[in-house]
Amino acid sequence: MKEIAAFEAGIKLGALFHQFIGAPVSHDNAEILARAMESCMKLQPYVAEAEVSIDRKKLEAKLSGFGYCSLSPEMLRARVKVRISEVEVEAVLEWDEERNYPLMKLVR
Amino acid sequence: MKEIAAFEAGIKLGALFHQFIGAPVSHDNAEILARAMESCMKLQPYVAEAEVSIDRKKLEAKLSGFGYCSLSPEMLRARVKVRISEVEVEAVLEWDEERNYPLMKLVR
Amino acid sequence: MKEIAAFEAGIKLGALFHQFIGAPVSHDNAEILARAMESCMKLQPYVAEAEVSIDRKKLEAKLSGFGYCSLSPEMLRARVKVRISEVEVEAVLEWDEERNYPLMKLVR
Amino acid sequence: MKEIAAFEAGIKLGALFHQFIGAPVSHDNAEILARAMESCMKLQPYVAEAEVSIDRKKLEAKLSGFGYCSLSPEMLRARVKVRISEVEVEAVLEWDEERNYPLMKLVR
Repeated sequence: MKEIAAFEAGIKLGALFHQFIGAPVSHDNAEILARAMESCMKLQPYVAEAEVSIDRKKLEAKLSGFGYCSLSPEMLRARVKVRISEVEVEAVLEWDEERNYPLMKLVR
Repeated sequence: MKEIAAFEAGIKLGALFHQFIGAPVSHDNAEILARAMESCMKLQPYVAEAEVSIDRKKLEAKLSGFGYCSLSPEMLRARVKVRISEVEVEAVLEWDEERNYPLMKLVR
Repeated sequence: MKEIAAFEAGIKLGALFHQFIGAPVSHDNAEILARAMESCMKLQPYVAEAEVSIDRKKLEAKLSGFGYCSLSPEMLRARVKVRISEVEVEAVLEWDEERNYPLMKLVR
Repeated sequence: MKEIAAFEAGIKLGALFHQFIGAPVSHDNAEILARAMESCMKLQPYVAEAEVSIDRKKLEAKLSGFGYCSLSPEMLRARVKVRISEVEVEAVLEWDEERNYPLMKLVR
């Protein structure tokens, strides 16, 4: 059962990343975009909790001459808790500076 | 100039469709998802107005056994007004039942 | 370890679906699109095998008046094998007619 | 008519960018991914020519510790020619270093 919950958690993070990377983002809409992303995660099977945030410093660093940028892997953070019957797993997506990679991992 | 405005309007509708098709959607998050999509359009260069809506009847018809579905071409509607100096163009995205196609067209 | 492999398999299927749903597809490019999708899966960590196919009958049924359509959940099938050290898991994505849903599941 | 052609060209570039940004890419699959992207563009209405390339130096610079990266705006280049009756327009997508932006523009 724990395997299934881990599988489901993986689906949610892979989905989030690949659905939304590239979306236009700035300080103006980072909040609503993150909330909409959470709302999408929460609809999916077995999701008990979901949190998404967009790192404002990394967003700032990426802003184009037009005042916004594309949502990029460096600035995206997420946490999802999946529950199937009594079994829970939690997973996060976080930029790994050392590997230069949007690392997804099980945290419990 | 009118050509450039028309080009910019095309970019916005193509971007919207291909960024968000596939996103998890239900009656619960259709509103916030549509607002987030508008917020993305409004960031892009020369956008004066943007409206996005998700057809609830078509959404209803697509719901899976899990109570939500993927945002699909049939249910997405959008309107964008682009303004460059004095020149304005307006374009819409709307499902064309006859052609079975998410038709994008200039309306003025 | 099996949990981690299952998590990784979930990431790959969630990623595939949400990256490519919406892409323009017809009988002309279904093959190259499926191969490109596989190539993307194979780059990801721990993927030992990946197969993607696009159901041509469902594609045919979705064709617009312009001779192509958007890649939709009904027509997408995939299988991924993840290997971490000695541990392997295999997962599939397949349309579930009964639930009207692109079901992802562990098969071993 | 020229406006309509410009509108159609904009759709194609906006679609390309937002469909494929985020896809896993390395030196191994950059070629097939670019060809698949072109194949998608060529299906769309009024496209007479389409070319997509992925800048290998920028790809190299983005590689993660896992040997691949997400397709990012900096590395994507495209050119599309749209023809409606006798009217042709051509447009390009190219990273603008000064504006830090994936600039799309009409070239004729």
